[in-house]
Amino acid sequence: MLETPREPFAWLEAAAEERRRAGLVRALRPRDADSPLLDLASNDYLGLARHPEVTEGAARAARHWGAGATGSRLVTGSTGLHAVLESELADFCGFEAALVLSSGYAANLAAVTALSTPDTLLASDAGNHASLIDGCRLSRARTVVLPHAEPETAGPLFAAHRGPALAVTDAVFSVDGDAAPLAALARVCREQGAGLLIDDAHGLGVLGAGGRGSAYAGGLSGRPDTVVTVTLSKALGSQGGAVLGPVRIIEHLVNTARTLIFDTGLAPAAAGAALAALRLLRREPARAAGSRQAAERLYEGLRRAGLPARRPRAAVVSVTAPSAAAALRWAADCRAAGLSVGCFRPPSVPDGIARLRLTARADLTVEQLDGAVTTLVRTAPVGQTSFR
Amino acid sequence: MLETPREPFAWLEAAAEERRRAGLVRALRPRDADSPLLDLASNDYLGLARHPEVTEGAARAARHWGAGATGSRLVTGSTGLHAVLESELADFCGFEAALVLSSGYAANLAAVTALSTPDTLLASDAGNHASLIDGCRLSRARTVVLPHAEPETAGPLFAAHRGPALAVTDAVFSVDGDAAPLAALARVCREQGAGLLIDDAHGLGVLGAGGRGSAYAGGLSGRPDTVVTVTLSKALGSQGGAVLGPVRIIEHLVNTARTLIFDTGLAPAAAGAALAALRLLRREPARAAGSRQAAERLYEGLRRAGLPARRPRAAVVSVTAPSAAAALRWAADCRAAGLSVGCFRPPSVPDGIARLRLTARADLTVEQLDGAVTTLVRTAPVGQTSFR
Repeated sequence: MLETPREPFAWLEAAAEERRRAGLVRALRPRDADSPLLDLASNDYLGLARHPEVTEGAARAARHWGAGATGSRLVTGSTGLHAVLESELADFCGFEAALVLSSGYAANLAAVTALSTPDTLLASDAGNHASLIDGCRLSRARTVVLPHAEPETAGPLFAAHRGPALAVTDAVFSVDGDAAPLAALARVCREQGAGLLIDDAHGLGVLGAGGRGSAYAGGLSGRPDTVVTVTLSKALGSQGGAVLGPVRIIEHLVNTARTLIFDTGLAPAAAGAALAALRLLRREPARAAGSRQAAERLYEGLRRAGLPARRPRAAVVSVTAPSAAAALRWAADCRAAGLSVGCFRPPSVPDGIARLRLTARADLTVEQLDGAVTTLVRTAPVGQTSFR
Repeated sequence: MLETPREPFAWLEAAAEERRRAGLVRALRPRDADSPLLDLASNDYLGLARHPEVTEGAARAARHWGAGATGSRLVTGSTGLHAVLESELADFCGFEAALVLSSGYAANLAAVTALSTPDTLLASDAGNHASLIDGCRLSRARTVVLPHAEPETAGPLFAAHRGPALAVTDAVFSVDGDAAPLAALARVCREQGAGLLIDDAHGLGVLGAGGRGSAYAGGLSGRPDTVVTVTLSKALGSQGGAVLGPVRIIEHLVNTARTLIFDTGLAPAAAGAALAALRLLRREPARAAGSRQAAERLYEGLRRAGLPARRPRAAVVSVTAPSAAAALRWAADCRAAGLSVGCFRPPSVPDGIARLRLTARADLTVEQLDGAVTTLVRTAPVGQTSFR
């Protein structure tokens, strides 16, 4: 026994002090159901999270199927509702089959780990989402991080590798909203016999005909060498994630993916809400284009005012800030003026540059969008227009 | 470019063939909402997943707050409902604070990775759940796997280690339903200045006064060196997970846990259902003891018939089978006789021994429990009674 036992979590103080010094303390700020703020911070791209058909889809499913799935998908956690959602989701996006998990994070861990072996080479874009990175870390494969959006760098790596190879990329990168060069990456993969795993969290419901997603838009859906993950918690306004691909790949995941086998199935309410949103999107396909047009209008307005906005490829518009502190202040000033925007700071930005992240919604009016631009311009940090 | 590109997922065939040969193919079997089967397979220990107060809690929350949380907990995904759930959950279990995540899996990844540094020694019980194991793998710490339920083996390891140390254990092990020697493990941790992380997925709602869980029962809740994870998807009949602990630890997780920062917040319906279940349990504390008594009755009946059941410490009763094939056949025969039981086979059993896993529910009648025993005995593999 030690004379003076160490204090087990003493090191937390130093970490907290470092955050305070760097101005990077985060805290949860619970919101009200009916916030007076104009929301440009959520990922509710189609404005469906509060749509009555979607919330009723949740309520009905909870009543009919129960509040929880009650077990792993492999035991009691697969309901007829999950099966219908999987079938309609796969059909909508142009894939043979789908597998629904409890989050997009879980879907990415499932896909990356189950589709790699110890002999696999994973080529992962430097801008990939944390869940893909954690999937690579959890896998037993070797991971090479590719320079952001430079698909040609994968070619020589794959050519030199003997075992299976898999390219892993976001379709739309979450922080800046830029798009991966999917066509070029798919060509490299095809030439080299590598598989392609695409996280389309920000593309489903926004890109492709009627919101069928990035892979569909690029003619990649349904291919035997392509697997896509999506989330049910963004454009579909619910919670959960899914893997889309050929039947044999989905069967493989059912048998091996730890985040499927060792997790409770998605709650019926979330499955019911996602299914209602999917059906609504099929019926009203113009919503997808609406979210893109809203993003384009935000972007144009900000650029006209000289702000360093990045041209959106989907519904995310990013504007860099001079510093983390400036970004925080900018977001707070917007908030005080009735506008809620995302503020991304280290460590959740890949390049260490803080920015505001604006998300367009299909249900925003032209007046709301232009008003948001006015607020953003009025509250912009001094000298901000030089940050291009 | 290769002359004949490899087929990227060709290796899946060999894996599938191996599963077929070993008789270990798994498939999803969607269930109906009103199954005629008696359910001893789910983790709905208190029978609350279908309770009208709980399903109405889900429906009401979806209508009031929306179908999804719409963003990360740090952006737009924290609602007033999440805050109330966290406050009441922490209070119920005797902790300062709680943090709700989208699954128990995510809660375990969050707790293990955020509470360890590259200098930390993680001591993880050999029987721990996959999500704790994956948390250890994702962490940058060194992990030592301790022999199952032998806490004294941690002492010399901790004593020889210079940096922070953390013991990680299930409170009730999910496969066999046996309990960790928490008191002894806590003593070793205290003597050596190590932290203690307890996954109480199967203890919340079942063990401790009124279902306050294993840590509360052992006088460990609220201690500065003890952190507990729970799930909202078992006894509380919903979906999600939570980390319980001192305020400074919860704040640390808010700032650093990747499965919190990079995941959409738990859907309001799931938070609402869990909160309704928690309040119901406070009002009807006898439900917790009811689930334990039901498990005890199952166990006694099976033992009287000579079956190799393991004495339950919570609501899980496990019975080993001579082989994976025999376990599958046994479960199928039960099913044909109207009884749904869990069938655990490699690779989801730690020791490679297949077994049936029976879960007791507080709302089962004596007749249902005794009928289940009769079915299990009648369909047991020949010679099964020698497998003790």
